Amino acid sequence: MGQLTIWTNALLNERAASHLREACQAHRLILASPPPDVLSKGAPDLALQEAQVAFGQPDPDLLTANPDLRWVHLSSAGYARYDTAALRSRVEEGGLLVTNSSWVFAEPCAQHALAFILAHSRQLHAAYEVQRTDRSWPHVALRARCHLLENQVILLAGFGSIGARLAELLAPFHARVLGLRRRKQSLPQVELIDETQLPEALAAADHVVNILPENGSTPGFFGAARFNLFKPGACYYSIGRGATTDQQALADALSAGRLAGAYLDVTDPEPLPPDHPLWFAPRCYITPHSSGGHANEPERMVEHFLRNLRRFEQGQPLEGLLLQP
Amino acid sequence: MGQLTIWTNALLNERAASHLREACQAHRLILASPPPDVLSKGAPDLALQEAQVAFGQPDPDLLTANPDLRWVHLSSAGYARYDTAALRSRVEEGGLLVTNSSWVFAEPCAQHALAFILAHSRQLHAAYEVQRTDRSWPHVALRARCHLLENQVILLAGFGSIGARLAELLAPFHARVLGLRRRKQSLPQVELIDETQLPEALAAADHVVNILPENGSTPGFFGAARFNLFKPGACYYSIGRGATTDQQALADALSAGRLAGAYLDVTDPEPLPPDHPLWFAPRCYITPHSSGGHANEPERMVEHFLRNLRRFEQGQPLEGLLLQP
Repeated sequence: MGQLTIWTNALLNERAASHLREACQAHRLILASPPPDVLSKGAPDLALQEAQVAFGQPDPDLLTANPDLRWVHLSSAGYARYDTAALRSRVEEGGLLVTNSSWVFAEPCAQHALAFILAHSRQLHAAYEVQRTDRSWPHVALRARCHLLENQVILLAGFGSIGARLAELLAPFHARVLGLRRRKQSLPQVELIDETQLPEALAAADHVVNILPENGSTPGFFGAARFNLFKPGACYYSIGRGATTDQQALADALSAGRLAGAYLDVTDPEPLPPDHPLWFAPRCYITPHSSGGHANEPERMVEHFLRNLRRFEQGQPLEGLLLQP
Repeated sequence: MGQLTIWTNALLNERAASHLREACQAHRLILASPPPDVLSKGAPDLALQEAQVAFGQPDPDLLTANPDLRWVHLSSAGYARYDTAALRSRVEEGGLLVTNSSWVFAEPCAQHALAFILAHSRQLHAAYEVQRTDRSWPHVALRARCHLLENQVILLAGFGSIGARLAELLAPFHARVLGLRRRKQSLPQVELIDETQLPEALAAADHVVNILPENGSTPGFFGAARFNLFKPGACYYSIGRGATTDQQALADALSAGRLAGAYLDVTDPEPLPPDHPLWFAPRCYITPHSSGGHANEPERMVEHFLRNLRRFEQGQPLEGLLLQP
């Protein structure tokens, strides 16, 4: 394979950028202005028209307009803004590969989800409330509210790379892990279920972890009807996309005492306005879409891109392929 | 083995008590008044004098005074109040077995420790502070403060049953786990070190988990001298016994910004008075000795006692033997 023109607007630090430059010396590398943060798309940049490879958050319209483009590696896990008819048909015609950075974010998201589950099981927020208020020592009451994960049922709704990694982290706890997924496949330590089995799973689950992607069938997926199927005292977690939760229905279920708690990393909208009622719902704990974050995120993002670049150079299958028929 | 007289003052619920009664029908069971909570000793009860087996938190002086006593099963993991010269010599003479309930508490304590470690790695308390104050959405800053456990160094100071279980829970994270222990033995996934290697380990560790027992050599084990050896930005956890931490030195290390945080389940004294300065030390989060607690604690305690009772009846070695020479 000859020299490629690689365009990137990935949000990198100096260390990650210099690693990228060194590892791409055989190619022509165009460094465009990055977006202001890792979740935003970049400004349109006409230099993208010259590239065979784009890495970052390129403007979707400019991608479609570039006939030489052969591979787009997104710096995000989500790809809703790239799931267009024009890009899909380019991929289906066989002229374009699109990949995402799921590998980069699956690890921190899985660790964040387990942090949520254990914070609930060990009642860390309740203890912190005591610390900030009367600093009593309610150890008898608090001990009785803690639960071991052993033999508990943990439902992962949306079972992709984050769910698979979370199941690995959960393996030593001897919980029963269920995974909701359209396409069934065999996996160790997880019972995969489909949507017809969901009511029964919701009635059994002590923990329901929403990792659903945002697509045509998922907005408001967890709403009043499904919250009413939850086992009383179950706990709800959301780390995929905010729109997949009906937030009013969630607040109602919390106020009614139907759920023991909710731990959300995603909301609708984001940022959640400071006066939004969800901030004040009882036992509802919100982190600001930080579940995918980690201090060495740019370095791991470049590491993953370069691993895929070597595969691309050698004509090997890429990791994280999207928009396949 | 014939009928035994089994005395218990273990703090049980109705379900655990009825399981105990049913499983002990071949013996004579004396149910004494339990102590007010799981960490206290019970009132002296003269009926203990008739027992061959005692289960719970019996009065140590009455134990010594009973020549027929053959086995004491403590309902706690800690046993400082039973580590007396009189009981030691009874054990050494071969006439008495003493066991503890480490098995019951190792699981919740290990889960509590991992909850602490992940709460720190994912900055859950910092996010909650945002939620209770300005409800801004500092996702760029917070993401950068999160860390993956992969390749981090986690030092377990005091490596017994809790440490061994914590190491199992940590295995899928691919951290480097060090265990400080007097007697070396070979264990998968853990590098055991001795005290001469501690300064080097403290300089390398991102997380230092104090699980030391309380004994003659451990009061104030973590004090100014050792905190000064910590890697800057490391996080400290204490889930063993409060007296093993020099709390003033810890508060100083936190105020100086030397430690990124401290998560304590044990303090000295307990309860920690509401006006104690440790409650107010920066980035110091305290749970009220709840790490061993779990909703089904009485059931698991009886399950463990009965497993040992079957072994005792059959002359097999007991689990959790203490005070051995």
